[in-house]
Amino acid sequence: MKEYVIAIVGATGAVGQKMTELLAESSLPIKNVKFLASSRSAGKKITFKNQEYIIDELVPDSFKGVDIALFSAGGSISEKFAPEAVKRGAVVIDNTSAFRMTKDVPLVVPEVNEAALKTHQGIIANPNCSTIQMMVALEPIRRQFGLNRIIVSTYQAVSGAGAQAVREMENQAIAQLTDSQIPIPEILPCGGDKKHYQLAFNVLPQIDVFSDQGYTFEEWKMINETKKIMSDDTIKISATCVRVPVVTGHSESIYIEIDQEDVNTASIKSILEQAPGVTLQDDPNTQLYPQPLDCVDLPDVFVGRIRKDIDEVKGFHLWVVSDNLIKGAAWNSIQIAESLHRLDLAAVPENDGRRH
Amino acid sequence: MKEYVIAIVGATGAVGQKMTELLAESSLPIKNVKFLASSRSAGKKITFKNQEYIIDELVPDSFKGVDIALFSAGGSISEKFAPEAVKRGAVVIDNTSAFRMTKDVPLVVPEVNEAALKTHQGIIANPNCSTIQMMVALEPIRRQFGLNRIIVSTYQAVSGAGAQAVREMENQAIAQLTDSQIPIPEILPCGGDKKHYQLAFNVLPQIDVFSDQGYTFEEWKMINETKKIMSDDTIKISATCVRVPVVTGHSESIYIEIDQEDVNTASIKSILEQAPGVTLQDDPNTQLYPQPLDCVDLPDVFVGRIRKDIDEVKGFHLWVVSDNLIKGAAWNSIQIAESLHRLDLAAVPENDGRRH
Repeated sequence: MKEYVIAIVGATGAVGQKMTELLAESSLPIKNVKFLASSRSAGKKITFKNQEYIIDELVPDSFKGVDIALFSAGGSISEKFAPEAVKRGAVVIDNTSAFRMTKDVPLVVPEVNEAALKTHQGIIANPNCSTIQMMVALEPIRRQFGLNRIIVSTYQAVSGAGAQAVREMENQAIAQLTDSQIPIPEILPCGGDKKHYQLAFNVLPQIDVFSDQGYTFEEWKMINETKKIMSDDTIKISATCVRVPVVTGHSESIYIEIDQEDVNTASIKSILEQAPGVTLQDDPNTQLYPQPLDCVDLPDVFVGRIRKDIDEVKGFHLWVVSDNLIKGAAWNSIQIAESLHRLDLAAVPENDGRRH
Repeated sequence: MKEYVIAIVGATGAVGQKMTELLAESSLPIKNVKFLASSRSAGKKITFKNQEYIIDELVPDSFKGVDIALFSAGGSISEKFAPEAVKRGAVVIDNTSAFRMTKDVPLVVPEVNEAALKTHQGIIANPNCSTIQMMVALEPIRRQFGLNRIIVSTYQAVSGAGAQAVREMENQAIAQLTDSQIPIPEILPCGGDKKHYQLAFNVLPQIDVFSDQGYTFEEWKMINETKKIMSDDTIKISATCVRVPVVTGHSESIYIEIDQEDVNTASIKSILEQAPGVTLQDDPNTQLYPQPLDCVDLPDVFVGRIRKDIDEVKGFHLWVVSDNLIKGAAWNSIQIAESLHRLDLAAVPENDGRRH
């Protein structure tokens, strides 16, 4: 059986660490793992399957002999090094937004569009965290009843903005609770933007920078990625993305309109109960519904509060929660690697189009 | 000029205290104020316009000689004592949900339906906090362009659940930040319900208890009160109400569909800029948008993130924030009292239908 050499790029980051943990538990047959990071982290030690590894500095030749490279070190690193990895024969699974909307780069949630992997040219993109969990929840409904409209409002956790943002929010909370001066915000809502605001005991309706038509990039990601993953340009979708003072676990209030008229809530629940990667948590009688605190470190997407719209016969409301670092990032990437293995696609195609 | 004797029922509560502060700043001509509370709080002192008042125990005869009674001491207190107040000639402005959906009880947001006060029979209901701020933001749009649909997801502050709930959330936050044991939750999400969950660094998609069709009472309040305030049973509206770890200030992600097709975002902004009780905070270039922390203790409803829907030509998205204790409760009640004075309606009608 083929065994793989795996590279993890950005091994010291929040997602890189989760990738390392989940790779250790994966069924993927592994020959060796290379941990790569910036020169700042090179030389540090990392433990994988009870063995110590030294982190190497990321350079183009790091990818010699690598079969699958998992990237999670920021968009500019991916832009620079992913093509170098592919040149050296490694299939790249990229967790940044660098290549998501690039033609010929499959954007994959394995439960939804695993088959899109078949056409990869070396780079496969992992969708945005808030998109992934929505896709896992909605695709089973779409397959059964059709889906023509989505309106989503998110409640996104701060770990999606990185470990420093988490510390910033926690320091704000401590200061407020002890009546101390709140430290001047320097990161949130968006490290690359001009103004910064307190998130502790607040909510900020901005994730990523602002873009066209008053929507933020995060909102455009949800809109564009959904159409690509579902291979449906006609689906109506709008998003409002909001950061809340939660450490881990994105929540989403989702309104959908399906194609069929005669569907009831019980049918939606029954489909989600059997859906891959979904845990149904929906019982008003016992106050059972998904909560971010309950989903931490779990791979599933949790769905509850399923209700028919009051007026629109094809309309339904759902509440969808998942760990943004796990299914929203690290776990979805590892799942893609497992799919590549199972489908025998873990190789860059040659000029003749075949994978040797 | 007529001067009024005002009673505040529930003077020691979070909303009662805000009512007292705002009444002191009001233009209402005041002869005297009676502060009423349960026997537990009777005898305590309260300061109003630099003068000390003793809190009296609430009994039916407390309302003798009272012109306007502001109630905010829970639904069961209102059910029992509001009719007693009316019997004794006091007009009741009730901040609880006890009479909101009762026929012949006007449900009033002065910026929206002040005229409904004209038919009052003694009791006037103050709407739910999350409904009020939505009405102030949407009514000016409805008047200009028509409004046929609302889909709202809320981000509601914990002070809406009372001062004890705020302390519970803050104690959870302190415990979590100091790696101590989280105290067992006893109040949130809803004091009267069976199960209780941590809100600190979490979000809870339950406000009030569950009711018909999987919707909570809070969600039904938003649905039913909107139709009553806007005097339009045909308006389509669904709500998802969510508690977030914010102390004060409710936020709402609102999607609307108007009647007209040729409206752009600039027109919506221009209308809201001139709307009573609204402050427009909408500039993506300077990251200006409403935040709960910025709205605390302010009377206005703040609106931003106004965007046209990507696909639906009549669809718009808005982000609406307001202090749930001020415009959502105390200030709206004081405004109703001021309207009663201005419209000369601050008296209970006699059997002949006239107010003497």
